Amino acid sequence: MSISAKDVMELKNQTGVGMMNCKKALTEAEGDLGKALDLLRQKGMAIASKKASREASEGLVGSYLHMGGKIGVLLEINCETDFVAKTDDFKELMKDVAMHIAASNPLYVTREEIASEVIEKEKEIYASQVKDKPANVIDKIIEGKLEKFYSDSCLVDQVFVKDPDQKQKIKDIVVEKIAKLGENIVINRFARFQLGEKNN
Amino acid sequence: MSISAKDVMELKNQTGVGMMNCKKALTEAEGDLGKALDLLRQKGMAIASKKASREASEGLVGSYLHMGGKIGVLLEINCETDFVAKTDDFKELMKDVAMHIAASNPLYVTREEIASEVIEKEKEIYASQVKDKPANVIDKIIEGKLEKFYSDSCLVDQVFVKDPDQKQKIKDIVVEKIAKLGENIVINRFARFQLGEKNN
Repeated sequence: MSISAKDVMELKNQTGVGMMNCKKALTEAEGDLGKALDLLRQKGMAIASKKASREASEGLVGSYLHMGGKIGVLLEINCETDFVAKTDDFKELMKDVAMHIAASNPLYVTREEIASEVIEKEKEIYASQVKDKPANVIDKIIEGKLEKFYSDSCLVDQVFVKDPDQKQKIKDIVVEKIAKLGENIVINRFARFQLGEKNN
Repeated sequence: MSISAKDVMELKNQTGVGMMNCKKALTEAEGDLGKALDLLRQKGMAIASKKASREASEGLVGSYLHMGGKIGVLLEINCETDFVAKTDDFKELMKDVAMHIAASNPLYVTREEIASEVIEKEKEIYASQVKDKPANVIDKIIEGKLEKFYSDSCLVDQVFVKDPDQKQKIKDIVVEKIAKLGENIVINRFARFQLGEKNN
């Protein structure tokens, strides 16, 4: 089976992975571009999970203003070296995440930040909503509602507003950058001000 | 006594006050430009204190990045109308205050924001430092140290970094804008991120 140079280039452009690895993935996927993309993504995840324990103390502080100053976002994303912080890929991530925060108004970066009392309170509410359901499904429903709460309120669990398929979460676009740039990348913190929401 | 048109223009440029009022102030100050400036400033303060009770819910959210993203500031300043928020004067205030925050790292906007426990703790420390002094001066010294603490940590009490004479406080430049723009103006809140200061 022959792998077309056009497909290799296409895959390279979509993933940022080197030509040789793109060709390998296409061969393994028997020339199927979609499958090859999935293979590289899985590989990316594997690389990313290896990097995830490494310390990230460099990076960037960036900002984004929406509607001429009605909404503003301040964001810190960390990586391992100043070199990576200066790449266009890292800057693109900063911009995408900051715009996403402006649009989606998350309350936390990750679910680990949420105070346990808040989660207990949520669980109580869900439990009172489903108390008439059979006992064996209640836990599953509560679990599902809690996941929904996380994906509403936690930045990394939110679906990326710019993803045309509305499938990619913010954590997925971070993982893609980790795989592409070869360094651990962590969204550290953000602030989001909407004009007039906090009255003096 | 004749007032020169040059002095009137100079005063107008420095204060933004109309020509007629500049001429009046110069006449009152018997042609002394410095005295006329003081007169107009006092008048500005008087206007400002009249405006200070009016509700300010319009304004801008702005940002400032220092050293290519090593420090970032997000800032909300409120005024009464969107019209004033769009003036160059208001934008200048936003920029000046945001830059000042990046440079001076205040912890609070005003002293009223500081938790009473923090102030009590500070007072205890000062008291232990001056316990050998005569009783009649201890209160004065503590008061003075507390003022120093406010001017170190509270944005509006800090000396504006860009003031060449290092006299104007942030609250003074706000009062000047209130007098000039004729609306109440309030620094609502800020966030300041310095790269790597909060470790994940």
